[in-house]
Amino acid sequence: DMAVRHYTLDFNLSTAVDSAAIVPSLLSIFHEQELAETIHDTNGHGYLATFVGKNGRLVILRVHAHGLVTIDLQCYEEDNISQLPALVRGATVDRYWPTADGRLMEYDIDEVVYEKDSAYQNIKIMHSKQYGNILVLDGDVNLAESDIAYTRAITGNGKESYAGKEVLILGGGDGGILAELVKQKPKMIIMVEISFSGFNGCKMHMRKTCGNTLDTLRGDCYQILIEDCVPLLRKYVQEGRTFDYVINDLTAIPISTEPEDSMWEFLRLILDLSMCVLDPKGKYFTQGNSVNMTEALSLYEEQLGKLSCPVDFRKEVVCVPSYLEQWVFYTAWKK
Amino acid sequence: DMAVRHYTLDFNLSTAVDSAAIVPSLLSIFHEQELAETIHDTNGHGYLATFVGKNGRLVILRVHAHGLVTIDLQCYEEDNISQLPALVRGATVDRYWPTADGRLMEYDIDEVVYEKDSAYQNIKIMHSKQYGNILVLDGDVNLAESDIAYTRAITGNGKESYAGKEVLILGGGDGGILAELVKQKPKMIIMVEISFSGFNGCKMHMRKTCGNTLDTLRGDCYQILIEDCVPLLRKYVQEGRTFDYVINDLTAIPISTEPEDSMWEFLRLILDLSMCVLDPKGKYFTQGNSVNMTEALSLYEEQLGKLSCPVDFRKEVVCVPSYLEQWVFYTAWKK
Repeated sequence: DMAVRHYTLDFNLSTAVDSAAIVPSLLSIFHEQELAETIHDTNGHGYLATFVGKNGRLVILRVHAHGLVTIDLQCYEEDNISQLPALVRGATVDRYWPTADGRLMEYDIDEVVYEKDSAYQNIKIMHSKQYGNILVLDGDVNLAESDIAYTRAITGNGKESYAGKEVLILGGGDGGILAELVKQKPKMIIMVEISFSGFNGCKMHMRKTCGNTLDTLRGDCYQILIEDCVPLLRKYVQEGRTFDYVINDLTAIPISTEPEDSMWEFLRLILDLSMCVLDPKGKYFTQGNSVNMTEALSLYEEQLGKLSCPVDFRKEVVCVPSYLEQWVFYTAWKK
Repeated sequence: DMAVRHYTLDFNLSTAVDSAAIVPSLLSIFHEQELAETIHDTNGHGYLATFVGKNGRLVILRVHAHGLVTIDLQCYEEDNISQLPALVRGATVDRYWPTADGRLMEYDIDEVVYEKDSAYQNIKIMHSKQYGNILVLDGDVNLAESDIAYTRAITGNGKESYAGKEVLILGGGDGGILAELVKQKPKMIIMVEISFSGFNGCKMHMRKTCGNTLDTLRGDCYQILIEDCVPLLRKYVQEGRTFDYVINDLTAIPISTEPEDSMWEFLRLILDLSMCVLDPKGKYFTQGNSVNMTEALSLYEEQLGKLSCPVDFRKEVVCVPSYLEQWVFYTAWKK
């Protein structure tokens, strides 16, 4: 394993630092390790020295003018100089997948079990010891086999009865929603996905999520359509077809806060068309985004107030295990 | 804000690298930034150069012999060169709290609201945007105001009826278990904590967790004892006093896999005494550890088989929001 371990160790000195006083004692540590030392000219930005060892070890010692001391150790073998776990760099399996609100998270991923570039996105399925297989689309953690909480939240948290109902699922290609709802014997579920890609990966590697529902495009009470949902929704509007539930599992709401962004236009279009095909007593369920993305969530709620058909909504914050952040889900209905 | 942002950027070249070929194009990027360059002798461990800028910026470029290229950028201002969020180093509030299984996690912590060193441990309460206040004991995330899932799990997940029952809580100083159980009108809850420290912090800053239960040491149906639980348990054994429920919230099971470790001895002692005061039809609840700490969990289960009174047990894996890892809880009862 030639991955590089990168340890960081930081400490703050309470008073502004006299490098001349602190540096010699720190240097003595590194001198013992037979490291070659270079002292750099920092133009008055504190003290900076690098140490290079024979075994490829690199130490960077900085004493910043305001009292912060940072030490970096990069080495090939496991070591343990820091309170913080090492950053593992250049490993064959990437363990770092940031949250939607941009925080660094290290997953316990040990294997990439599936990878494919479709016309629409990069599809990865990775194995986590604690979450089972995780579907990652374009670098975003989408759903893990542990995440029944996601499926429950986007189907109304067990408070709805789907028996005998007409349901439309937009997206949902991992099969999680479909697998849960068919158990309740709805009259018919139409699920519309834009592409076959992803199906195969999920069908093979996310069976705890999709069960056997993706093995066939037509079941007792469901049908999977492989097409763009927008023309389909327009057709349903023209035909006057309605659904008791519309579940939008297409994507998280955009994190862009520019309402003119094409992602927001697409979102409004889907919302408007969905409300047109929703029974007057029906419910629309969708995911939002990280609870910390407050601006994006507010903007989404503004859009809900601008639809051609007036709607009310409520939201709920849910812990989806593999997300490592709290996630907002919305329920909307016609006023 | 003088915190240092530390960005990392890594890429793997498919074939072993000829530094002479790749380095000049990379160097040209840094030359444009007016950085002073030092090339280091690595004794055959690839190529290493450091670049120091006038504004305190430091770039480390390494081309490792096996094809990995790592670039580090350390700077004072926000920047965005990497797909990974920057490590923030030397900030006044520490955002990095590793999981029990040693993974790096960045929390959305924006403030330390309470800190105290007691005779037994360091007590911190920190504010997270999404989890509310978080109690951190000796650097371990203990409980956040969002973590009702923890309290539910360690009290039997809503499947128990505590009305009219006798309950013993070992630890539980954050008041979460107490606050939930008093709602059910038990006959009497005895909660035993070794020290007052922590109470004050939780009483002030964890009110979503403890409600008003910590405001007084004696309520309608509960009593809080500030003492070591071992002599108390021994006294109860002598008196023949029994409880319908014993809830051990003292600490996670040790991660050490040395069964002779004093932590394990303490754990066995508590287990044995707890079983002695448990009603024959009673239940013992406790937390275990991260689901990934498989050796420590196995060792714990071995201990359960070695008690003076034979017990059966079951375990459950629960998602506690602020833990950022799946957590094991145990229920044990007399055979």
